[in-house]
Amino acid sequence: MIYLDNAATTYPKPEEVYRTVENANRNYAFNAGRGTYKEAHQTLEMIEETRQLLGNLIGVSGSTVSFESSATEALNIIIYGLGLEDGDTVYISPFEHNAVVRPLYNLQKTKNINIEVLPFIKETWEFDAEKANDFFALKKPKAVFVSHISNVTGYILPYEEIFTLSKKYGAVTILDCSQSLGVLNPSNINIDFVVFAGHKSLYATFGVAGFMNLSNMRLNVVKSGGTGSDSLNHEMPEGGNGRYEAGSINSVAIAGLNQSIKWLTKNQVYQHEKDLTDLLISKLQKKDNIHLYIPDNYSKIQGIVSINVEGYSPIDVGTILSDDFDICVRTGYHCSPFVHDFIGSRERMGTVRISIGAFNTESEIEQLISALDTF
Amino acid sequence: MIYLDNAATTYPKPEEVYRTVENANRNYAFNAGRGTYKEAHQTLEMIEETRQLLGNLIGVSGSTVSFESSATEALNIIIYGLGLEDGDTVYISPFEHNAVVRPLYNLQKTKNINIEVLPFIKETWEFDAEKANDFFALKKPKAVFVSHISNVTGYILPYEEIFTLSKKYGAVTILDCSQSLGVLNPSNINIDFVVFAGHKSLYATFGVAGFMNLSNMRLNVVKSGGTGSDSLNHEMPEGGNGRYEAGSINSVAIAGLNQSIKWLTKNQVYQHEKDLTDLLISKLQKKDNIHLYIPDNYSKIQGIVSINVEGYSPIDVGTILSDDFDICVRTGYHCSPFVHDFIGSRERMGTVRISIGAFNTESEIEQLISALDTF
Repeated sequence: MIYLDNAATTYPKPEEVYRTVENANRNYAFNAGRGTYKEAHQTLEMIEETRQLLGNLIGVSGSTVSFESSATEALNIIIYGLGLEDGDTVYISPFEHNAVVRPLYNLQKTKNINIEVLPFIKETWEFDAEKANDFFALKKPKAVFVSHISNVTGYILPYEEIFTLSKKYGAVTILDCSQSLGVLNPSNINIDFVVFAGHKSLYATFGVAGFMNLSNMRLNVVKSGGTGSDSLNHEMPEGGNGRYEAGSINSVAIAGLNQSIKWLTKNQVYQHEKDLTDLLISKLQKKDNIHLYIPDNYSKIQGIVSINVEGYSPIDVGTILSDDFDICVRTGYHCSPFVHDFIGSRERMGTVRISIGAFNTESEIEQLISALDTF
Repeated sequence: MIYLDNAATTYPKPEEVYRTVENANRNYAFNAGRGTYKEAHQTLEMIEETRQLLGNLIGVSGSTVSFESSATEALNIIIYGLGLEDGDTVYISPFEHNAVVRPLYNLQKTKNINIEVLPFIKETWEFDAEKANDFFALKKPKAVFVSHISNVTGYILPYEEIFTLSKKYGAVTILDCSQSLGVLNPSNINIDFVVFAGHKSLYATFGVAGFMNLSNMRLNVVKSGGTGSDSLNHEMPEGGNGRYEAGSINSVAIAGLNQSIKWLTKNQVYQHEKDLTDLLISKLQKKDNIHLYIPDNYSKIQGIVSINVEGYSPIDVGTILSDDFDICVRTGYHCSPFVHDFIGSRERMGTVRISIGAFNTESEIEQLISALDTF
């Protein structure tokens, strides 16, 4: 099998992640901080260490980290926690995932918020700062959501430029790093929330994700429940990461994340994925029957490449690649509703998405190219 | 180590659960239903089979099952999804966990709902149906929340009696089976929602939980995001379990649950835990310095026993048991705020909770008793 669906979930994981998760399940899968016994305390210490490992990736304290079960849950907690009110305007990039788009539209049913798409230039994929400034002046941004790397196109968004402008208007800034953190780490400047997905670019297993609250902003409580502390209080803690962590924490998945971050810091995953991305694009560019969704300058494409094959629907391409070549890609709209208007793939039933991981090889890229030669 | 904190999370798990989870992580940890390739489809089939295994436990269709990351998340999704409005009254038993209590109190900040505690008789722990009927007549129940087994006292609540009355008043009925499903299964009569926690009585790992929607009630959307389908639609699916399953599903934890349910159906876990519970209670009753929190007739206590030791705070007992005897129990209020007024442990800083699992032995109970002899 040639696995090229790493944007859905990275596979495989580093060997030490598998071993750690297996060991954690067998030997220390306790309910951290909820017991009086030393094994529960040890589990708690490992969780705190993992918060700091995450914080180190962008140079902030581990105390900013709240663990959730998925980036989707983290984004829901932020979006509903911001306390948006009637008349507020939020801006999203055209590259945002439904984990941002759907909670915002769901919130719009009860709060009369405006949801606006940030202007980007179609040819260059650059942020249209001048136009955005006009938009912001007209409708002040309350919150601005940007993906660090687009899950459809692999585009590294110019979040610094967007957030610098957003902060001039006092917006809360949220960077969705589901496809980047661990491999490509953002700065910690002008960002209020960094969202991460353990099972994607962080190379951990399913079951751990969350957000970093860089400005220590106090969100309204969205999910509440037991915290193992202050049980007689009917409210969640007033502050700290515990305010956003109701229910048993998945200490086993966090143990895997602890190892995967250590592994990431010792390996050049960004450069490896970048090299394979460049190789893939250069090969695809030579093929007349392939439509590539990239900007003129593709240096900003990382790990993910979307294409279409002339004469074939995306799903047909995916099925043939799986059935005849044992190559796994993903096809369709990839839970990202606005990007297809931007890149022009809406009428083509979306794209065929090829997404590269740390364990893919040049040979696998060559085999994909050979398979595409048969179309 | 003698592990007697199974109400926090069961430990250990059946060997086949460990092996299945390890195998799933290594060999089929794909993003189910989000790929065009056969491996993703196989993962999806395993998930659907697991829904039916859960359904079989109470004789309903697997299509009623929505997977979430924790019982806490499942309860939040139900509580906020019910569409409670100003003036609505919800009833909870005095045995409810903060996974029920805190979301209700948090909701009360924006909706003027009444939260009432169901009447129970202090001596017998029986449901006071007559008084409840008076309450319901005065303030009609919109929703009634009952734990199947109390996480503090091990008490099997008379949910049939409570829900039969509740249904006469048209209430939505929610049974929290976090401490029971798999070991002690409820009926499917007069119940709208069954909540389950994979890592507790179902003997799976962390990362899988959820609810069964027995009446196919349409909840408002609480958590939204990608579903791997209909990506251009800004809304969650109109119906079906997918409406409540945003984000990547934890297929690895579900694979473990698939195995643990099969294991539970082949083993007499209920009887084993019952026998050890009865042994424990009979031994504790003989000790003058132990205060046992049980009703006069303790046949309804299953798996969990709360005590206090005269002259010691609960946390001191837990610490001594851990440090001197390597016995793990939990101490304090156990995320359950009302039960301590009911049983009288509030002023004693809660209880020492001894919770029994499938792998505990008579010898371990004897060792605990010997350890308590030293106090």
